[in-house]
Amino acid sequence: MRVIGIDPGNAATGFAVVENVAGGFRHIVAGTIRAHRNASPSERLRNIYEHLLETVDAYAPAVMSLERNFSAINVQSAFRLGEARAIAKLAAAQRGLELFEYTPTEVKLTVAGFGTADKAQVKSMVRRTLGIDAAIELSDDAADALAIAACHLFKARFAAPSIACGGRQGVR
Amino acid sequence: MRVIGIDPGNAATGFAVVENVAGGFRHIVAGTIRAHRNASPSERLRNIYEHLLETVDAYAPAVMSLERNFSAINVQSAFRLGEARAIAKLAAAQRGLELFEYTPTEVKLTVAGFGTADKAQVKSMVRRTLGIDAAIELSDDAADALAIAACHLFKARFAAPSIACGGRQGVR
Repeated sequence: MRVIGIDPGNAATGFAVVENVAGGFRHIVAGTIRAHRNASPSERLRNIYEHLLETVDAYAPAVMSLERNFSAINVQSAFRLGEARAIAKLAAAQRGLELFEYTPTEVKLTVAGFGTADKAQVKSMVRRTLGIDAAIELSDDAADALAIAACHLFKARFAAPSIACGGRQGVR
Repeated sequence: MRVIGIDPGNAATGFAVVENVAGGFRHIVAGTIRAHRNASPSERLRNIYEHLLETVDAYAPAVMSLERNFSAINVQSAFRLGEARAIAKLAAAQRGLELFEYTPTEVKLTVAGFGTADKAQVKSMVRRTLGIDAAIELSDDAADALAIAACHLFKARFAAPSIACGGRQGVR
C-alpha cells in the first residue's frame, strides 16, 4: 500500500509518499511546498493544489493520510489551517484517494511511541523507521509528513484485516 | 463588469453572477450548491469546486466577491468555513479572477444601507436593486450571494477610477 502523508500549512505544506515493503516501510519521496513570498492567499492555495495533484499523479498513492488539528490557537489561525487542509481533501476526492485523518498526538504516539514527542524525537524515529540516513537532509515539514504517512501504515498493519481503526474517514 | 458573488458554506454555498448595465445592475444567475446528505467532507468540497468552476466557465465573470467572515462561533466552525472559502479562492486563482473580500457588515451596509440589516431586509433590497420580481423564488444563500456580488459593484461604481476601496485583495 502506498500512502501520501500531508502536513497542511499555509506557508509550508509538507508531503511524503511512503509504502510498505517486506519487513518495513520505505519512503518514495518527501518535500515541502512553500508559498512564494509575494503570492496572494489564493495563489498560495493554487500552488499547494497543483503540487499535490502533480505528486499524486506521479507516485499514485491509494490513500491520503492528513494531519487533523483540533487545536488552532484562535479562530483566525483555524481559518488558515482549514484552507490548506481543504485543498488537500479536494485533491484526494478528485483522484479517488481514500482519506484518513490523524491528530498530531495520534501520529506521535504511533510513530515515536509517546504522544508528547517533540519534533526532534519524531524526526529521529522517522529516520529510523524509514531508514533515512542522517546524510539526507529532512525539513521539519517533510519529516512531519513522513510521520503522518507512516502513522497510517502502522495503523493499517496492526489492524488487519480492516484498516479503519484509528483514522476516521470523513469525520469532522 | 461581471461579478460572481459567493457565500461559502459547507452544507450550502450560495453563488450569484451579477453585472452592471446602464443605470443599474442585473443578475444573470443565482443559486445554491447543496451537499448531498451522505457525501463525505472531501466529496462536499469537490462538489463545491466543480460547480463553481462550471459557473465561472459558463458566465465568465472577471471578479469574485467573497464573504469574509471573521466571526466564527468557535475554532471548529472556523475550520469548516475556511474549507469552503478555500475552494472558492482556488477556483478564482485557477480562472484568473480578481478576488475581493467583504465582511457581512460591509455587505449589509452597502446593499441595505445599514450594517445590522437582517436577512429579510437584505433580501428585499437585493430584489429591488436587481429588479428581481417577488414571483421569483430566492433562497437565503442565493440572496446572500447576490448581495455580496452587488456589494462589489456598488463599491466599484462609487470608487472610480480605482476599485480597490472596500475589498482588499489577498488580505487575511
